[in-house]
Amino acid sequence: MAHYDLCVIGSGPAGQKAAIQAAKLAKRVVVVERREVVGGVAINTGTIPSKALREAILKLVGHETAMPSLADFQAARNATFTGLLSACQRVIRAEVDVTADQLRRNGVETIHGDAHFIDDKTIMAVGARNNVTISADLFLIGVGTRPARPTNIPFDGQNIITSDELLEMPYLPSSMLVIGGGVIGTEYASMLQLLGVQVTLVEARPRLLEFVDAEIIEALQYHLRRSGMTLRLGEKVTRVQTIDPPRGARSGNKKMAEVTLESGKTLRADCLLYAIGRQGATDELSLPAAGLDADKRGRIKVNENFQTAKGHIYAAGDVVGFPALASTSMQQGRHAACHMFGLACHSVPELIPYGIYSIPEMSTVGWTEARLTEEEIPYEAGIARYEEIARGQLLGDVDGMLKMLVHQESRTVLGVHAIGTGATELIHIGQAAVAHNATVDYFMDAVFNYPTLAECYKVAAYSAFNRLHGT
Amino acid sequence: MAHYDLCVIGSGPAGQKAAIQAAKLAKRVVVVERREVVGGVAINTGTIPSKALREAILKLVGHETAMPSLADFQAARNATFTGLLSACQRVIRAEVDVTADQLRRNGVETIHGDAHFIDDKTIMAVGARNNVTISADLFLIGVGTRPARPTNIPFDGQNIITSDELLEMPYLPSSMLVIGGGVIGTEYASMLQLLGVQVTLVEARPRLLEFVDAEIIEALQYHLRRSGMTLRLGEKVTRVQTIDPPRGARSGNKKMAEVTLESGKTLRADCLLYAIGRQGATDELSLPAAGLDADKRGRIKVNENFQTAKGHIYAAGDVVGFPALASTSMQQGRHAACHMFGLACHSVPELIPYGIYSIPEMSTVGWTEARLTEEEIPYEAGIARYEEIARGQLLGDVDGMLKMLVHQESRTVLGVHAIGTGATELIHIGQAAVAHNATVDYFMDAVFNYPTLAECYKVAAYSAFNRLHGT
Repeated sequence: MAHYDLCVIGSGPAGQKAAIQAAKLAKRVVVVERREVVGGVAINTGTIPSKALREAILKLVGHETAMPSLADFQAARNATFTGLLSACQRVIRAEVDVTADQLRRNGVETIHGDAHFIDDKTIMAVGARNNVTISADLFLIGVGTRPARPTNIPFDGQNIITSDELLEMPYLPSSMLVIGGGVIGTEYASMLQLLGVQVTLVEARPRLLEFVDAEIIEALQYHLRRSGMTLRLGEKVTRVQTIDPPRGARSGNKKMAEVTLESGKTLRADCLLYAIGRQGATDELSLPAAGLDADKRGRIKVNENFQTAKGHIYAAGDVVGFPALASTSMQQGRHAACHMFGLACHSVPELIPYGIYSIPEMSTVGWTEARLTEEEIPYEAGIARYEEIARGQLLGDVDGMLKMLVHQESRTVLGVHAIGTGATELIHIGQAAVAHNATVDYFMDAVFNYPTLAECYKVAAYSAFNRLHGT
Repeated sequence: MAHYDLCVIGSGPAGQKAAIQAAKLAKRVVVVERREVVGGVAINTGTIPSKALREAILKLVGHETAMPSLADFQAARNATFTGLLSACQRVIRAEVDVTADQLRRNGVETIHGDAHFIDDKTIMAVGARNNVTISADLFLIGVGTRPARPTNIPFDGQNIITSDELLEMPYLPSSMLVIGGGVIGTEYASMLQLLGVQVTLVEARPRLLEFVDAEIIEALQYHLRRSGMTLRLGEKVTRVQTIDPPRGARSGNKKMAEVTLESGKTLRADCLLYAIGRQGATDELSLPAAGLDADKRGRIKVNENFQTAKGHIYAAGDVVGFPALASTSMQQGRHAACHMFGLACHSVPELIPYGIYSIPEMSTVGWTEARLTEEEIPYEAGIARYEEIARGQLLGDVDGMLKMLVHQESRTVLGVHAIGTGATELIHIGQAAVAHNATVDYFMDAVFNYPTLAECYKVAAYSAFNRLHGT
């Protein structure tokens, strides 16, 4: 039986980075991956495919010759949609190759098979052709999640689907109900709307994405509605079913999805995307054999160093819960590996950025206004609108904005929140500033390339400064 | 006669920012602008028009349905080119409006007319309808530059032109000789090549853009050549003339441009863009009346606070010479205004970024390898290639790269140099780090949104770190 210093279960962002970190410390590492290809959900069905689709849509729609949007042109739109999806395959392939190559170069072994714990030091990897038993001193569980499929939702893969099936749809529906205004629901809803699908987004809470700054979400909701999307916020779904189309409906003989809300409303569309909750992919791991268990959503509880109840078994990535972003999962995997082998690893939660790839995209780092107010920290907000920035005009994005929060006394930059083109890139300037306790003066004095969106920092800094001085 | 605290001559980036800074200090400010619209060369014929064209070209070429490139499709390409130029007008208009509005909101008066010094405290603005005499305690000369037109070059506005005329060309030439591999020559050469024009770029020095890091320029030159451009480096032009086309040339009866090089080569093309040197637009200012003069290139000498030989007359922007970028001109204008009124103004030359909007674009901040070697500062370089970054794959830009220079002992980040999509934006992350003496550890520990180009910083940091430790 092969013995390793570290056995990583799952080759997504958390597993990959943990494996590579450990390998760099000259440890013997194996990755057990259920799929035939490495990369986990991030590369294969989640982050990368959705971002590739997003990029393709933006390119398509950004171009002068906009896509036909009348119902008559449905055929053309379907061709476009499947074309977009196949274009994404190239990017996925490239990412799988880069990841596999990274693991190989660092001397990490990869075994393809389903991992099951035999005891807390041993797993069996059940492969297509043979089973392999592996023992290791340390484990990292990075198995990720899959879309939740509650039993009361009659998924049929056609009219009622999860995000996994969305990327395999043979045609673009005319109308779509998206249930759940979290990251996944919001991202796909905005993409589909831009492709000309009539989207209704239903969210039980009074606003989308509660962890993001309220003003940014207000702007997002405004833009989504202006693009033609219907938002149903603070609405609970009581029933989901497929129905025969009402007589004369344009979808012909095809089935439709119907949702009943607690408020009594009935919503119908060609297709329903169920995007509430994801389930930790832990049910086949035989966790009890290792003395572990998962909660009812399949998630594993860990401490601040990503150790489970068994100190030598770590878990990281989506399987441990919020925020479940590829970026944070990577950091968690690396942090766990550093902790295993006694290496210092600095994670400063305040400096973790969040990026949401809706259209428009959003990003945020540091304190929100809500939290500053709650903690009674006096601050001033400076705002730059892309409209005032040459680069915003050049990109044709006059709706974007960047907000800088500055301490009223020390003038330290406390947080940056942005919505619009490039927001996920831009935020890292603010992150470097917050990390180094920069004051608003830094941005007032700095020279920015012209024309760039980065100039927003200077405009926002002057705006905050002027408000601080009541001018 | 109206009297002002400050009279600004020219409403380009330097003049604008000086005027607004002074107005914010409650000074009475007038701007005298020769054109009918504000904004100077940056908005009207230089930075913004060229960047708008660049953006339009990228959008066009980035799209799947690439433009026809065979000679037969010349008509289609011409239509495209003039379409591109007219699309740019919208952006120019918007920028003029934003600038005019900013001046107005800050209570800055604007007078349209040609400024001439009467004495060192008085100017006359000669307008279309009337002349206005203005006195002021302080002056800022921000009149900018125009393309140099040496008398030995037979400019004809059609076959032999400057960059001003390029943006008014009624048709796209099949072939183009660009003389001068500075910022303007390089930017336009790369755009024209991408539009399918057969470009030859001639530069007397052995490489393009000597102030940019050598490895970045090596990559640029490689990419330009790979895109089909001919580079003639280290070649001196001895004669420029128009000729009748050789029999059978595809340009039919039209004239062509011909260049003779010192090395004996003859180069011919439909059109020649002369992009060597710009001339300070000072010849009509009557500088001697104010006790000042300009050098033979029309430039005005200033000290570190942008004061001319007359302490109360400042000059800033392109008219004072290198680097002559809109971004630095803005900072100079602001710096000058701060100095005039005794306000502290921090300019740290090491933190000034340079952005070059060639295709691919480039940007740089901090030390170059050449200067570090010269000053015997031991460093290590870490490199990230867009190819390895998910976002690079998504954008289809696998050629970009970012280089981070790190002090071998203190591990401080000393400089960042980038080429590729978004380089001019990305560099500002490095700028914030260099400004705050960040070490490579900051980038190794930081969490980056995924997928972003900003991740290059993490990859480059690990690359530098591994080299520092010989792994």
